[in-house]
Amino acid sequence: MNKPTLPQGTRDFNASTIYKRNYIFNTIRKAFQLYGFEPLETPAMENIDTLMGKYGEEGDKLIFKILNNGLDNPAKKTEITEAFNKVLNGKLTKQITERALRYDLTIPFARYVAMNHGQLTFPFKRYQMQPVWRADRPQKGRYREFYQCDADIVGSTSLLNEVELAHLYAHVFRLLNLPVTIKINNRKILAALAELCGGAEKLIDITVAIDKLDKIGIEKVKEELQQRQLTAAQIEIIAKFLSIQGSNQEKIQALHNTIAHIPLGKQGIEELEYILAHQQSNNPLPLEIDVTLARGLNYYTGTIFEVKANEFAIGSIGGGGRYDNLTELFGVANMPGVGISFGVDRIYDVLEGCNLFPPQISSGSMVLFFNLGPTESNRAFELLQNLREQDISGEIYHEPSKLDKQFKYAERKGIPIVIIIGSKELAEDTCTIKQLKSGHQTTIAQKELLNYLSNLITSL
Amino acid sequence: MNKPTLPQGTRDFNASTIYKRNYIFNTIRKAFQLYGFEPLETPAMENIDTLMGKYGEEGDKLIFKILNNGLDNPAKKTEITEAFNKVLNGKLTKQITERALRYDLTIPFARYVAMNHGQLTFPFKRYQMQPVWRADRPQKGRYREFYQCDADIVGSTSLLNEVELAHLYAHVFRLLNLPVTIKINNRKILAALAELCGGAEKLIDITVAIDKLDKIGIEKVKEELQQRQLTAAQIEIIAKFLSIQGSNQEKIQALHNTIAHIPLGKQGIEELEYILAHQQSNNPLPLEIDVTLARGLNYYTGTIFEVKANEFAIGSIGGGGRYDNLTELFGVANMPGVGISFGVDRIYDVLEGCNLFPPQISSGSMVLFFNLGPTESNRAFELLQNLREQDISGEIYHEPSKLDKQFKYAERKGIPIVIIIGSKELAEDTCTIKQLKSGHQTTIAQKELLNYLSNLITSL
Repeated sequence: MNKPTLPQGTRDFNASTIYKRNYIFNTIRKAFQLYGFEPLETPAMENIDTLMGKYGEEGDKLIFKILNNGLDNPAKKTEITEAFNKVLNGKLTKQITERALRYDLTIPFARYVAMNHGQLTFPFKRYQMQPVWRADRPQKGRYREFYQCDADIVGSTSLLNEVELAHLYAHVFRLLNLPVTIKINNRKILAALAELCGGAEKLIDITVAIDKLDKIGIEKVKEELQQRQLTAAQIEIIAKFLSIQGSNQEKIQALHNTIAHIPLGKQGIEELEYILAHQQSNNPLPLEIDVTLARGLNYYTGTIFEVKANEFAIGSIGGGGRYDNLTELFGVANMPGVGISFGVDRIYDVLEGCNLFPPQISSGSMVLFFNLGPTESNRAFELLQNLREQDISGEIYHEPSKLDKQFKYAERKGIPIVIIIGSKELAEDTCTIKQLKSGHQTTIAQKELLNYLSNLITSL
Repeated sequence: MNKPTLPQGTRDFNASTIYKRNYIFNTIRKAFQLYGFEPLETPAMENIDTLMGKYGEEGDKLIFKILNNGLDNPAKKTEITEAFNKVLNGKLTKQITERALRYDLTIPFARYVAMNHGQLTFPFKRYQMQPVWRADRPQKGRYREFYQCDADIVGSTSLLNEVELAHLYAHVFRLLNLPVTIKINNRKILAALAELCGGAEKLIDITVAIDKLDKIGIEKVKEELQQRQLTAAQIEIIAKFLSIQGSNQEKIQALHNTIAHIPLGKQGIEELEYILAHQQSNNPLPLEIDVTLARGLNYYTGTIFEVKANEFAIGSIGGGGRYDNLTELFGVANMPGVGISFGVDRIYDVLEGCNLFPPQISSGSMVLFFNLGPTESNRAFELLQNLREQDISGEIYHEPSKLDKQFKYAERKGIPIVIIIGSKELAEDTCTIKQLKSGHQTTIAQKELLNYLSNLITSL
């Protein structure tokens, strides 16, 4: 057998990485719960009909499909041969694949709401933190298996939901001690801009071009708009709009001057103003209006959000917005909503890069009992069990062995305290405690051990 | 679009189920950490070579394979047509599928250890709690996606590891308040039995038959042994062996009388005795020797465990044992180990059936602020944010609405406390607090709210 490998674009997570990832997950989960969101978990695989056609043609190609079992069934040979011929011509059929892996958390959520809307209490506030799979070309920071982490509120058009989500974002990053800016814009403002320069049919062209501003700069955006058949006069209007700068208040004023005469524009500005007005004096929201924020070609219809780390250069670490109808694709009407998501892999990179992971997030053993022979280790094992009953984590070395080997094990596993019971300690009902970092060593009565360690661990 | 459905054998988990499942996962995880096990997470998909051929012919069929992308590539038409023809004849090739979904946690663990053994500290103690996928026929209690939950110690032959795992089992079920019996046996004892009645080549036949004893009874086991070409005299010996009864001490004595003259038998008995001797006076292990325990046809070579709930009729809720070489299949020798696993779905059913889930495991909102208009809700929102800063979870109703509608929302979501700020409360800087269960209602100053709620919630 060859040396085994991992599939491209996938990762094993070892203990130290898991402790850090769980710190992020637990922090986000805590905030989700503080804001009244309920957890939901959906299966890794969905029916292929549920997923296909939801992410555009490119998305369809990137969905991992699961091969049906029993394709060698002789009774079905003709049928399956035919199906294989269709696959060769680019058409997957249910004879070949009936299931596929989750591609995001939004479509499974929509499927869940459509299936259960009669039983749910609305507005339905759910969060979901699960892996998704995409057959994207793997590259630095882009994986074929990665976690998404979403919170959505559906069944309500109230802007209070946007306010809640802005505060939720701020709360999470405050808990993570990570300074961020929450960029905010409104699709209605972009629609008004389209109207301003010639009509709603330009909206997609404008959105696609604006969305690239960050990456390609204003000159290239102008070129793209030209290629998309916008006139020089229209491009001029757009460029002027994109140059709106200043404080939030100044931007609001500029928007008023530019698009407030268009009903959609007026509405978009009022929505921005409503959200900006709901600040907390002690924890002001790090909101920044960004009229160039477009959030790709997705289904957003109102407020859009994007979160950037202030002190670390990386793409957005969160994003979201309001959509008109979550469940329309599954035959259930009237399900407006708004949602946000957290980019866990990037948040991890930022926390690592800014050295923001707290030192005490490991859940490894606090103590290692040395094993110095059968009788000694029996006593050690009893003491260890007493510690575990009191929620102190620990281990006993698996076999009698030289001291330096046992020390090395503690060192390599980062166990801070070793406890030695040799023949002398056994005879005297004592134990010797050594702290690896400081080298500090002391001998105490065995019956004092629990107390001694409780104090020591708190002080570490 | 038709009403969406879930793939057969898969489940959505809603909030109340997730709270209960997390109670189980968190309890097991806590114990794993107390015993010094480190977490590991592996990807959902593995290379197809890593999985195929590891679970027998039947297992190979039940592995979910992932269809390669790009099968309609015209440049590869001949190659892929050929591959499809092979599939029709029962032979999957890498042109069609290069990856498959995890079928258990043991093989990915073995693959991980084989890939990283140079960097790991041995004995390596890892735990893993992740879903696995099997294309089994779905039926009551059997799913195509389910969690496994394993702890293993590899790189050591010390029996102290078995002792640790027995205590870990006992610890978890003690934390869950679930009375269990840990059945224990040793493959060496079964090997000695085979020797006793005619030779090691009978071992598999005997193990397969004995493994069915629970389900089919002794007479059917005898029939099966007869079909497997064992003589009447041999069957007599086996039946007598299987009838060994009594206390652990009496069983040990009976084993001594029966197989202690066979070296493997003697070793197996000594191993049982070693584990039985490592009891704690305050928390005796619920160990019960069961000489009929066989644990199927797997790779176990020494101690085997199986856990049964004492007061609820269901199959085993845990199992495990010692194996000789985890990583042999991946080209790495000398990796003996021992592991246990927890059957989370069954443990869930038992806790539910015995009403053992603690009442306070929900993480839903503690308070709901009513929304009685824009000014009132602004004040309510401010107060809510203060509570959330102090880790009290809550919500504000999303829009101004009739009282009974807002009460109904709180009721349906199980929110125990509602807080009402109407025009009167707004004018007087007070708020009215109502406990839904008791109907108790009181009005207090807004500045007293945090203190009042902190005390109230502790008392709920």
